[in-house]
Amino acid sequence: MVRQRGQALWRNAMAIRQMSSAAKQIDLESDLALQAARTWDEGVSSKFSTTSVAELFKGKKVALFGLPGAFTGVCTSSHVPSYINNCDKFKEKGVDSVVCVSVNDPYTMNAWAEKLGAKGKIQFYGDFDGKFHKALGLDHDLTGALLGPRSQRYSMYVEDGKIKVLNVEKVPSDFKVSDAETLLKGI
Amino acid sequence: MVRQRGQALWRNAMAIRQMSSAAKQIDLESDLALQAARTWDEGVSSKFSTTSVAELFKGKKVALFGLPGAFTGVCTSSHVPSYINNCDKFKEKGVDSVVCVSVNDPYTMNAWAEKLGAKGKIQFYGDFDGKFHKALGLDHDLTGALLGPRSQRYSMYVEDGKIKVLNVEKVPSDFKVSDAETLLKGI
Repeated sequence: MVRQRGQALWRNAMAIRQMSSAAKQIDLESDLALQAARTWDEGVSSKFSTTSVAELFKGKKVALFGLPGAFTGVCTSSHVPSYINNCDKFKEKGVDSVVCVSVNDPYTMNAWAEKLGAKGKIQFYGDFDGKFHKALGLDHDLTGALLGPRSQRYSMYVEDGKIKVLNVEKVPSDFKVSDAETLLKGI
Repeated sequence: MVRQRGQALWRNAMAIRQMSSAAKQIDLESDLALQAARTWDEGVSSKFSTTSVAELFKGKKVALFGLPGAFTGVCTSSHVPSYINNCDKFKEKGVDSVVCVSVNDPYTMNAWAEKLGAKGKIQFYGDFDGKFHKALGLDHDLTGALLGPRSQRYSMYVEDGKIKVLNVEKVPSDFKVSDAETLLKGI
């Protein structure tokens, strides 16, 4: 019992630390960028272009969620489906785009989006070098799960670059606060 | 013409440099390991186990090929199919296993192997932290293609850890010397 309370306190402390170190604003003047999911051939024909955070967020209302990795467990079975099933509700609230981002390359993200039947509903982006998540303080080492440097599991609602809502799971294997329903309540 | 010759000389010089810096032996006493392709659930039930190079290579004849990334162009359209189509010929030559490895996590490698219909024919492994390729001098930066630190495109034939044949493409977009037929000729 004491041990359980200790674990709970430790988890809460860790979560608070995570929240306090996370950014409150995406710097739209920075050179931060994400990479739109695409096939390799589309990558070549796009000259491996990236999408700046200004393009993604400036003057826009964006619901964004991040997860530890394409083709992993909770991400595939619960996290993405939660947003697919609720994408119309985000539109009803005036949200311009629902975005899934992960520390993966854009070709893997594209293959995963195809497999999940998410194309046309949610925009998928890679953060292949992890710079977006590092800048936001949402990077997370998952070497123990054979994934390497990845991100927390989280959701956020962003207006013109300002992070109005940020829900970060205490541990990336949790799926308690980063679901679509919880984010919708905060918008 | 002069410029073309210059480019050709530069490419040859680069290839020679790559070959001379590549290892001739896989150190079977090292703690180097790869990660067998598997689903996330299999990853959890395996306690995220890895496969040591000793397990993979000790006392064995292995045909191994490496490539820049799962779900990318030449890798998907040509490189893996070349080995799928020739896996029986490797067996006829007494090769114990045909192995595909890439700087990817093992869950992405598994999804790619499934999509390619390669399971049961070729063994897929991830080198999620790139340590295997760095140790062999076969690492290669592909940030320009939105992939980050990856590997050369190559094939090798390994007997009990000794690299008997090593075919490295001059640039990873080439597919001229790392195909199954060329490797078979060298065994």
